Amino acid sequence: MSHNTFGHLFRVTTWGESHGPALGCVVDGCPPGLRFKLEDLQVWLDKRKPGQSRFVTQRREDDLVKVLSGVMLDADGETMTSTGTPISMLIENTDQRSKDYGEIARQYRPGHADFTYDLKYGIRDYRGGGRSSARETAARVAAGGIARLVVPGVTVRGALVQIGKHKIDRRNWDWDQVGQNPFFSPDAAIVPVWEEYLDGIRKAGSSIGAVVEVVAEGVPAGLGAPIYAKLDQDIASLLMSINAVKGVEIGNGFAAAETSGEDNADEMRMGNDGTPIFLSNNAGGILGGISTGQPVVARFAVKPTSSILTERQSIDADGKNVDVRTKGRHDPCVGIRAVPIGEAMVACAIADHYLRDRGQTGRLK
Amino acid sequence: MSHNTFGHLFRVTTWGESHGPALGCVVDGCPPGLRFKLEDLQVWLDKRKPGQSRFVTQRREDDLVKVLSGVMLDADGETMTSTGTPISMLIENTDQRSKDYGEIARQYRPGHADFTYDLKYGIRDYRGGGRSSARETAARVAAGGIARLVVPGVTVRGALVQIGKHKIDRRNWDWDQVGQNPFFSPDAAIVPVWEEYLDGIRKAGSSIGAVVEVVAEGVPAGLGAPIYAKLDQDIASLLMSINAVKGVEIGNGFAAAETSGEDNADEMRMGNDGTPIFLSNNAGGILGGISTGQPVVARFAVKPTSSILTERQSIDADGKNVDVRTKGRHDPCVGIRAVPIGEAMVACAIADHYLRDRGQTGRLK
Amino acid sequence: MSHNTFGHLFRVTTWGESHGPALGCVVDGCPPGLRFKLEDLQVWLDKRKPGQSRFVTQRREDDLVKVLSGVMLDADGETMTSTGTPISMLIENTDQRSKDYGEIARQYRPGHADFTYDLKYGIRDYRGGGRSSARETAARVAAGGIARLVVPGVTVRGALVQIGKHKIDRRNWDWDQVGQNPFFSPDAAIVPVWEEYLDGIRKAGSSIGAVVEVVAEGVPAGLGAPIYAKLDQDIASLLMSINAVKGVEIGNGFAAAETSGEDNADEMRMGNDGTPIFLSNNAGGILGGISTGQPVVARFAVKPTSSILTERQSIDADGKNVDVRTKGRHDPCVGIRAVPIGEAMVACAIADHYLRDRGQTGRLK
Amino acid sequence: MSHNTFGHLFRVTTWGESHGPALGCVVDGCPPGLRFKLEDLQVWLDKRKPGQSRFVTQRREDDLVKVLSGVMLDADGETMTSTGTPISMLIENTDQRSKDYGEIARQYRPGHADFTYDLKYGIRDYRGGGRSSARETAARVAAGGIARLVVPGVTVRGALVQIGKHKIDRRNWDWDQVGQNPFFSPDAAIVPVWEEYLDGIRKAGSSIGAVVEVVAEGVPAGLGAPIYAKLDQDIASLLMSINAVKGVEIGNGFAAAETSGEDNADEMRMGNDGTPIFLSNNAGGILGGISTGQPVVARFAVKPTSSILTERQSIDADGKNVDVRTKGRHDPCVGIRAVPIGEAMVACAIADHYLRDRGQTGRLK
Repeated sequence: MSHNTFGHLFRVTTWGESHGPALGCVVDGCPPGLRFKLEDLQVWLDKRKPGQSRFVTQRREDDLVKVLSGVMLDADGETMTSTGTPISMLIENTDQRSKDYGEIARQYRPGHADFTYDLKYGIRDYRGGGRSSARETAARVAAGGIARLVVPGVTVRGALVQIGKHKIDRRNWDWDQVGQNPFFSPDAAIVPVWEEYLDGIRKAGSSIGAVVEVVAEGVPAGLGAPIYAKLDQDIASLLMSINAVKGVEIGNGFAAAETSGEDNADEMRMGNDGTPIFLSNNAGGILGGISTGQPVVARFAVKPTSSILTERQSIDADGKNVDVRTKGRHDPCVGIRAVPIGEAMVACAIADHYLRDRGQTGRLK
Repeated sequence: MSHNTFGHLFRVTTWGESHGPALGCVVDGCPPGLRFKLEDLQVWLDKRKPGQSRFVTQRREDDLVKVLSGVMLDADGETMTSTGTPISMLIENTDQRSKDYGEIARQYRPGHADFTYDLKYGIRDYRGGGRSSARETAARVAAGGIARLVVPGVTVRGALVQIGKHKIDRRNWDWDQVGQNPFFSPDAAIVPVWEEYLDGIRKAGSSIGAVVEVVAEGVPAGLGAPIYAKLDQDIASLLMSINAVKGVEIGNGFAAAETSGEDNADEMRMGNDGTPIFLSNNAGGILGGISTGQPVVARFAVKPTSSILTERQSIDADGKNVDVRTKGRHDPCVGIRAVPIGEAMVACAIADHYLRDRGQTGRLK
Repeated sequence: MSHNTFGHLFRVTTWGESHGPALGCVVDGCPPGLRFKLEDLQVWLDKRKPGQSRFVTQRREDDLVKVLSGVMLDADGETMTSTGTPISMLIENTDQRSKDYGEIARQYRPGHADFTYDLKYGIRDYRGGGRSSARETAARVAAGGIARLVVPGVTVRGALVQIGKHKIDRRNWDWDQVGQNPFFSPDAAIVPVWEEYLDGIRKAGSSIGAVVEVVAEGVPAGLGAPIYAKLDQDIASLLMSINAVKGVEIGNGFAAAETSGEDNADEMRMGNDGTPIFLSNNAGGILGGISTGQPVVARFAVKPTSSILTERQSIDADGKNVDVRTKGRHDPCVGIRAVPIGEAMVACAIADHYLRDRGQTGRLK
Repeated sequence: MSHNTFGHLFRVTTWGESHGPALGCVVDGCPPGLRFKLEDLQVWLDKRKPGQSRFVTQRREDDLVKVLSGVMLDADGETMTSTGTPISMLIENTDQRSKDYGEIARQYRPGHADFTYDLKYGIRDYRGGGRSSARETAARVAAGGIARLVVPGVTVRGALVQIGKHKIDRRNWDWDQVGQNPFFSPDAAIVPVWEEYLDGIRKAGSSIGAVVEVVAEGVPAGLGAPIYAKLDQDIASLLMSINAVKGVEIGNGFAAAETSGEDNADEMRMGNDGTPIFLSNNAGGILGGISTGQPVVARFAVKPTSSILTERQSIDADGKNVDVRTKGRHDPCVGIRAVPIGEAMVACAIADHYLRDRGQTGRLK
């Protein structure tokens, strides 16, 4: 069983392995008439690409995205207009250093997909994790770049809110800070704490988990469906599909379990301009599966990478007991680079539901 | 946009409102040759049905399930054999007491789907919550009864592990206790605590959230997919589609964010019988989207019901400010009855992936 | 493998066997706000129901459709308004006379699905053909009744244009004639020919094939998709899914193979009102998978029923050679009753593409 | 609305325009462990590629296929093994000569998708037909090459059986002839007739339709589904999705309308080896949507290309009346190159149903 497409009308199919010649995606269902330049997509890939600080993998990839179909070029040779046909995007793999990973071709890293892949398929591209490498998410980020263009006025932003036990102070939340530090932290005060903490992790060859929060503003009210294909359900599904994600929350999430009905209710009043105002947003912008017009808020937990220097007990493909330690480049905290990936997933879910509601036609509208 | 089907090969379509003549579902993709009696399905519906204790809604429904198609009856008039064609099941609504809800036909309960439904569709069946009523989940539980039959040897069990801030003591976990108390608690010691706590909530006309844990044992290794349509992704999607669910975890979930790579790794050794043994199960039985053979463990947070006696600020369909309080029958803790629903969703996800892997043929196998 | 749903946004799931208690369907994706009475659906079921002339099966079924969900009733107790939630419809089986079919429980009628069903599923509801009975199409016709309401101004009409070698004279085409004879013939002149011909067939216990033509007028230009999910592709798919259909044509169909590019081109001129006018309709209203605004024209060939009185060589479930003849009630020309079924399928395909283009929202628009 | 994926478990997504840098497809759901070389795919592309005789378009494309993902290379650098992850394939466009088509950027060729594309999307890649170009089918043929590997023992072959009114003599059918003439004709005797006929068409700048027949041998019995997702339905859907196809038949197709139940029945006897033998194959190898084990036989009608030298009346994008003639390279009979495309579509449908029945697992089986 393999299934590499998501979305119902805005449909994204990704392909590619860590150490193949390239990876990419096909974005199908994009409405005609969207205008953009390559740099409008590249900006998101740059945010995700490896090697940007000492806290992420040192693999060097430019992650330059190419658009192979689905657009017409303006005379300026830069501006593209979507034609409504599938947009194929390709990103070449350039820094592959296969040798680093050679020795784990037959050993199963505990907590890694190595074991289940081999079990299921009987064959596995072990080079750099093959299909299970986080490199696959570069294609998602490219697709998210298109998705952001589909819904007029929507803004999807993510931030890291927790590394290990160290959580941000929400009173310090400042979106402008997110681009100012290597962690996508919205809280400037926690940055030195995280730096010191992660340096320790990194030097020990260890790894640690994290929590990412994604907020989508400008989401039109009324997107989603009542029972299945709820907007929150589809967001949860896509966030859970990101490598290493083990939990997803909408709005106040698990805190809702500890909250009374009185406190959890997002009270409403009519605003002076005749539009409803919510006095709180415990619901995370979604009620009964349908967007309220408030910001859509989702969080997800990323486990620590299983590629660590410390020996762990495991088995190999021959059924022998082995002790595994992973040399080579890895992320001390894969949660950091999950921020732009989470944004892309939320953007895609919103674009899909937007098209379900508004239709996909160009001139007919 | 409306979408009331889930599953790719084991496909479930539900229909029906709280106050219509009936509700039900069509289970499509069920393999031929499964043998069962009506009571094998009814037992799960009985577990979910309302009115079984003072801690859940007092609505009285027998929730008797009928099978209208997809089976051949034995000469005994009881035993059914699936034929591979769609199984249509129907549950009549009998206790509808529309008057209780009449006054909220035009008022939006804060935190409820009332507002978004009206916004989206411009028409809403306000009687008992219409389609957004938890009654819809009776159909899911019936479908889950079929799903349990699909995968040989699988056992899917749920338990309530938290009400408000009161969590069970996991050292007391005893599956046998789950059927002995009105909360599906696996910890006998917490039952009197929860009773007293919920009596207070109930008498105050208030409500409170909860956390449910579902464990599936006997899941064959190798179910799932690497990137999208991961087993954990599909479980998260279905759990998040349950009314009032705001968060989902697999394995150690959000706790993974606070865990080091060394501690999070589920180490492995070869067992004496030649099968791999995991020394822990932080992964919740799923690695890289594919089942490991360990128990699959999922948790979800259920928010407090928004139907409470205390007045809350809101608006109505005419855009007027109103103060809303909900009279009538409601659940002080909807999380309790979510236990069998969560089980059903996990069972359906596993059945779907089982068929993707093994195929759906009868004699050809 | 079983799959009983069609459509992408306007989704229809059918269920039920010939000799079960009932059959029905769930229509999902219907927009809110459609207003209709039960008789608006029943009229199409009446057109399809058996026993209306000596030229179709003598099974007696009232085929009364019930709506179980998805609508709100007006105070008049008759007028329904769709709410955007799934519409579940049910039709009871009343005239089942199982004995007629008992003897073929283990014999395979040549040309019938008996053999392949048993082969695939290892179990088969042999009573009246079980799931392969044309009774399943009653549910399709009910769904088609809803589909007709979805697209404003669309009219979908079918006619029988050929029985055996006897084709209508197209110069006599008069839609008003279709309801005036037991064959849905648009050509009054051929009716006595067909009557005499079919009486011979019927008395001999034989059967004969037919060709049905469906024309949809008022289809908005621009429905469909360029490569896959073409409007003509989806129509072909649904027509081919009708029992006994062996061929499908769009526009001039197979005649196009004998036509030159000059003759096949549908030339265009601008009309006085500023809308394009086509000077012919060889394309059948669809170019490149997308509707042109011209009438959509489809035809399909229905093979003769395989239930005949004459003995044919066959085998049974034990692998023995047998000679099979089918007693009981059957259609000398199943193509006749395929007319309203074909209409329903075309209506559903158009409704699905209409929603893909225009979206499914109510008030948001 | 755009939808560029087909298949349920064996899923193919195509992308690309006639005059973009490349076109390609992603084949998802391919089982692991298939072994092949690039030449095993290239052979089918070579069969389809343009410029191979004077009877097809003179565009020169090598149509060399590259495999970008989803395989592991053997040490020989040639043999690939599928890993179960998506196989991305790419074909570069090399001979684009945009000037030929420049003048029709705003004129609508009668019978061509120009008009409906512009109407629907408001923007159209007019260069070489853009997405509606038959070049898209190169990607289908590559996907079909993979599909052929999925089902052990299956052989899918096509032949041209009619050009204009000139049909082959079926008594002369010889598969070995198909590769010996530029028409894929199985009847050597008709080759000179077609040559002379098509030379006339070609010199007149005209075009003509054709009929293609595809036969799949070695299809396991039991593939398909009873009601929807029938094997014949899915074949019809895919064949109808090929550019310019206006009709599809299974088995004796439209001839079934003229046949009696006695003559149409495919009688059966048990063979000496204990397997059932069919005495004829009017059904085309499919009964009730499910394969019988006999050869699957499908035919489709291809209309004449609408790009002709003779002036036809039309309109342009400004709503002006124009007279259109198409200069540049075109196919006098596009039906010829449709032969390998039809094969690919049938192979994909069979592979999809094979996986639905047998599952997609590797080692688990």
